[in-house]
Amino acid sequence: MSPAKRVIIIGADAAGMSAAHQALRTAKRTGRELAITVLDKGTHTSYSACGIPYLMAGDVDSADDLVARTADAHREAGIDLRMSTEVVSADLVAQTVTTGEGEVVEWDELVVATGAPAVLPDWALRPDGTTYDGVGAVKTLDDGAEWIERFAGAPEGAHVVVVGAGYVGVEVAEAALRKGFGVTVLTRTRGMAMLEDEMSDRVNVGLADAGIELLLGAEVTGLELDGDRVTGVRWDGGTREADLVVVAIGVRPATAFLEGTGIELTEGGALRPDPHGRVADHVWAAGDCCEVRRRLDDAWVFRPLGTHANKHGRALGDSLAGGTLSFDGMTDTSITRFSYGDVHLEIARTGLSRKDAEAAGHDPVALVTEGSTASGYMPEAEPIALWVMADRTTRRLLGVQVVGGRGAGKRIDAAAAVLWAGGTVDDLAWMDLAYAPPFSTAWEILQVAARRVAERL
Amino acid sequence: MSPAKRVIIIGADAAGMSAAHQALRTAKRTGRELAITVLDKGTHTSYSACGIPYLMAGDVDSADDLVARTADAHREAGIDLRMSTEVVSADLVAQTVTTGEGEVVEWDELVVATGAPAVLPDWALRPDGTTYDGVGAVKTLDDGAEWIERFAGAPEGAHVVVVGAGYVGVEVAEAALRKGFGVTVLTRTRGMAMLEDEMSDRVNVGLADAGIELLLGAEVTGLELDGDRVTGVRWDGGTREADLVVVAIGVRPATAFLEGTGIELTEGGALRPDPHGRVADHVWAAGDCCEVRRRLDDAWVFRPLGTHANKHGRALGDSLAGGTLSFDGMTDTSITRFSYGDVHLEIARTGLSRKDAEAAGHDPVALVTEGSTASGYMPEAEPIALWVMADRTTRRLLGVQVVGGRGAGKRIDAAAAVLWAGGTVDDLAWMDLAYAPPFSTAWEILQVAARRVAERL
Repeated sequence: MSPAKRVIIIGADAAGMSAAHQALRTAKRTGRELAITVLDKGTHTSYSACGIPYLMAGDVDSADDLVARTADAHREAGIDLRMSTEVVSADLVAQTVTTGEGEVVEWDELVVATGAPAVLPDWALRPDGTTYDGVGAVKTLDDGAEWIERFAGAPEGAHVVVVGAGYVGVEVAEAALRKGFGVTVLTRTRGMAMLEDEMSDRVNVGLADAGIELLLGAEVTGLELDGDRVTGVRWDGGTREADLVVVAIGVRPATAFLEGTGIELTEGGALRPDPHGRVADHVWAAGDCCEVRRRLDDAWVFRPLGTHANKHGRALGDSLAGGTLSFDGMTDTSITRFSYGDVHLEIARTGLSRKDAEAAGHDPVALVTEGSTASGYMPEAEPIALWVMADRTTRRLLGVQVVGGRGAGKRIDAAAAVLWAGGTVDDLAWMDLAYAPPFSTAWEILQVAARRVAERL
Repeated sequence: MSPAKRVIIIGADAAGMSAAHQALRTAKRTGRELAITVLDKGTHTSYSACGIPYLMAGDVDSADDLVARTADAHREAGIDLRMSTEVVSADLVAQTVTTGEGEVVEWDELVVATGAPAVLPDWALRPDGTTYDGVGAVKTLDDGAEWIERFAGAPEGAHVVVVGAGYVGVEVAEAALRKGFGVTVLTRTRGMAMLEDEMSDRVNVGLADAGIELLLGAEVTGLELDGDRVTGVRWDGGTREADLVVVAIGVRPATAFLEGTGIELTEGGALRPDPHGRVADHVWAAGDCCEVRRRLDDAWVFRPLGTHANKHGRALGDSLAGGTLSFDGMTDTSITRFSYGDVHLEIARTGLSRKDAEAAGHDPVALVTEGSTASGYMPEAEPIALWVMADRTTRRLLGVQVVGGRGAGKRIDAAAAVLWAGGTVDDLAWMDLAYAPPFSTAWEILQVAARRVAERL
């Protein structure tokens, strides 16, 4: 029997641990001998970063609830998991990685699943690289714990400025409202930039109705400080007093340790693994440190989402152990919710934006359709707006976006399924979606929206 | 200019009026001249029969709310609509129909959209053909109005026996519970027979938890009567006292007037139009009086649902006016809800049953997977069970069934989309469905269920 292959996985979250467990499962079938070691610089494994805003809001009782699988559970499955162990460099020729403490670890296969920490701009940071008091990002469980403390320690009537109006920005704004704070959302873009204007405008109306101050197209130029404590945010158009400042402007792949190894990184620092997770001989990658392939236009895009990380990690682990599973890209689906007081908005998208579609050479036709999530006479009925885009020539469905009340958001899945299959807007309009009065109108609104576009091609 | 074609449509509900309006719209484009007359034996147009249980429950204020479009609105669109006009015979050679009052109406094109009235067994009927007092079906708006009166007039603590445990039976049982009645559901089948046993069992548990008495495998043999008023139901295993008896054992196509015309009817009395709605030269049909083609096994099945009626009616109207729209079958999707007290079940299916699949020559592999509608740590999370079936050889997805809490039901749409495209269980497992903690687990449970089946093929 040949000695077990030494697999080193860097990163103990969605991608890395999916890879580890799937590799062990597949190895049982293929007879491969794998010795899997996972190195992670943090203290928490396999947690839901997406759940942190709900932890901040108090919807989730404790940070432990967000941990899907503890370190001990991973170890019981036969994985050598070493927490608080940062990898600072890699040598692809010697097949080693070196930790922050100078330990050199040998590998036969290396898996990079280092994720993507939050971007913290210079204005948020003290000279020592830590954030000013009252300022922080929302990415790790430790971030979440810090925010719970900051929220608990904030004075009555405190004001929170959220910088960034993507999914995380909107989710954190909801959390801050629920905690009784005044909230400003400030973004240099138009807000919810993953949606078309005519859809993001609907979100903006909802945020404003819930009492959020929106500052769009505003570039932060610095903080107002009292010592090391933030007291306000300065932007190119004015100043806003603030007791707390949430930085939610995005994340960046943790790939600095790969510089000089010869592995190609994008300008943004991302890896581009193949559907099995390979980036080079014996080197693999998956998760938030990677770009993912969008099937519709074959574009590489940076979409750091747990769902892609889980899928790509699983395909990687299977392939590493001799299996054939592959992650054949995605269709750019995402979803969130904004819920406060009388405002309940479910927000989802799948497919290309109009700009994406034009760049890919399509002749896109798009329309917004308004309707109801249930039959109009039912108490469940809530307003919903759908943006549907198709190609004029091929009639292919290109993208769908949804903003609406309860029951609106997950409607995106049927559209995502059509996109996955490369179907047309006519497929979406005529397929057999479920109808009963508490769930939809007799012509499901997603299909009405598709039909209206179909009639204009 | 040639004289306008005389189109006679029999039936002023979903299929007939969809056909009428689409024909007018298409005719504008094609330049056809159509004179459309609609004959209907009833007094209400275009109403939601599916909404009647919710009217009975008091969720809907008035029967008028269920009318999507009034007779006047249809007339304003240029349709000659004649209510209370029953067609009793048709002559395909002379191209006429004869009304109950003896009027002979000529046509160039005949559209049969007569629907399917409720089946009333002999035991429910007096010698004059009307139901005994306290006994009725749930199909027309008039039925709904009668039930509102019966419910209002019933004594405190009255008991309702619902005969039939399909969608309508379950919906009416919910309505009766909400109105404060004791409820028995009695069926000669196992209950919710459109689901596999392992799924319908879950519904039965929910019905029982809500306080419903379930009598399964029970054949009604007659009623107990006090004069003309029902006081109980006798079945092959005993007797149940009852103040009210709801007959919800199905419907039957209203096609008796076509006997002897040479148009072929199934044993159940249904028509089988082509995707454009044609059944013979110049004769068309759509809606509940027809069977529909199930794409997965190319079987004709009787599925009297408004959603098929609307789609087929539209394709028919378009084709009649020179267009090319077609209704290319369905995938056997349906949905309902049972909600009372602490019990909230969303129930949906799409695709083939195991029996269907075996009959079609498949080698089906099916599994039930249990999970959560949202991330487990979220307050929104409710239990969900999914039955997924695929073909062992081709890996094609064959059917999916869902029983679960809020947010469970409409998940069926993504599965229906995969079935529509002829996709595999791997497509369902790996496609890009929406994830955020309030909406799903990081691996959407529908995809976990698909993956589990995929791993067993």
